[in-house]
Amino acid sequence: METLDAATLRQQARAGRFAAPTAGQAPGKLQANLVALPERNAFDFLLYVTRNPKPMPLIEVLEAGRYESRHARGSDVRTDVPRYRVFRHGQCAGEIADAREVWRPDLVTFLIGCSFTFETAMLRAGIPVRHIEQGRNVPMYRTNRATTPAGIFGGPMVVSMRPVAAGLVARVAALTARYPLAHGVPIHVGAPKALGIEELARVDFGEAVSVEQGEVPVFWACGVTPQLALETARVELAITHAPGHMFVTDAGDETANLEAL
Amino acid sequence: METLDAATLRQQARAGRFAAPTAGQAPGKLQANLVALPERNAFDFLLYVTRNPKPMPLIEVLEAGRYESRHARGSDVRTDVPRYRVFRHGQCAGEIADAREVWRPDLVTFLIGCSFTFETAMLRAGIPVRHIEQGRNVPMYRTNRATTPAGIFGGPMVVSMRPVAAGLVARVAALTARYPLAHGVPIHVGAPKALGIEELARVDFGEAVSVEQGEVPVFWACGVTPQLALETARVELAITHAPGHMFVTDAGDETANLEAL
Repeated sequence: METLDAATLRQQARAGRFAAPTAGQAPGKLQANLVALPERNAFDFLLYVTRNPKPMPLIEVLEAGRYESRHARGSDVRTDVPRYRVFRHGQCAGEIADAREVWRPDLVTFLIGCSFTFETAMLRAGIPVRHIEQGRNVPMYRTNRATTPAGIFGGPMVVSMRPVAAGLVARVAALTARYPLAHGVPIHVGAPKALGIEELARVDFGEAVSVEQGEVPVFWACGVTPQLALETARVELAITHAPGHMFVTDAGDETANLEAL
Repeated sequence: METLDAATLRQQARAGRFAAPTAGQAPGKLQANLVALPERNAFDFLLYVTRNPKPMPLIEVLEAGRYESRHARGSDVRTDVPRYRVFRHGQCAGEIADAREVWRPDLVTFLIGCSFTFETAMLRAGIPVRHIEQGRNVPMYRTNRATTPAGIFGGPMVVSMRPVAAGLVARVAALTARYPLAHGVPIHVGAPKALGIEELARVDFGEAVSVEQGEVPVFWACGVTPQLALETARVELAITHAPGHMFVTDAGDETANLEAL
């Protein structure tokens, strides 16, 4: 697949010409999960986000009526994600390419860090990323780990998984620790059953990838977590990215670390 | 002055027997700024906090009706701060020892990190802390630096100042970088006028301390910043700690760093 820069990817998503997962795209740029929900649920949701920084590292909040991310010049969060999910009363009611058809002026938008962000650093360090090699979406799983609830929001943590050669696991942990806005260090290494994952081949989101001899499955907290919280909370209307189909910013992958100093 | 442990200090504050600044108290424990305001302003304020992590590193939010910090067993945020300020329509209407007399059930409480937290580490590293030596409150100044606004909240950043021997400044910066929940690295070193501070002897909060020959004034973002934002926002009712009179938790001074990994 062709590798696009961030601005081109957003333009193509807007024009309906890019509707695929964004892993491997816009190398070195910060990628983001998107959740938009009504203003009256915004305090509970922001509190939920701040209480769970591992699955939901906060990048930016756009107040109701704001659509351009300060990390993506000329962007529009309603059109620049390759694929959206629409939730009505907590149920996923379908996927759409352009969210303007269902957007409402009272929706507040949350951009939350994504682990695709650190994959450029993995590749540069010579550590292969299986779902990029296989041209698939990253595998994601619902776990038995509860998030810390806030108001109407709560529920299990979702994780993404990357198989890593056993001899590289510690190095990958140290490397991803540099990217706290991209979920940072893994939350678990090696034992899917301890997370309540019975079979790696049965993903809850994304696509399964092969785990080879000598590789260990490594799990990172995932920004799809709030999509499960929307279900529990039965929020009247919410719009999210489709898992793996991220909002791509112009910010460098380590930018946020500098801001947090 | 006698050094109290965190639980004893909270008990004595509750009983009206401790009403002094908390610098040097409860060594090695996380100290916190307190802001309580009505639920209807809580989203704007939480957004303001997350947009300004340097002056307002968030430790905890207690929803309306909750008074015990999860970082301080048996605590009550309405009584355990040595001294409170009450703001009505943005104006400081006075200081009180027990906030229960003005508390309302719709107040949401925010605990925000405080630079007193890293002073134990400074002392252990052999770096003197002048206001502790002189038995005074820390000097604090309003600056010409604007915070990033959110909703009704905005305004200038407040800083605390500690004089540091020139040869120790870089070490102090590196040391305090380990405490992002206590404002982390200084925001400025050496030039008060660049921050709009005309005279170090004229403090806006706390008390002035002497700056000796060979020492440089070092400035950290300060959790009194939101008290100025309350003025601008004219919030109907807000309760804060009195500057320097912090809520002292049982959490170790580095605890939050581990949680954020």
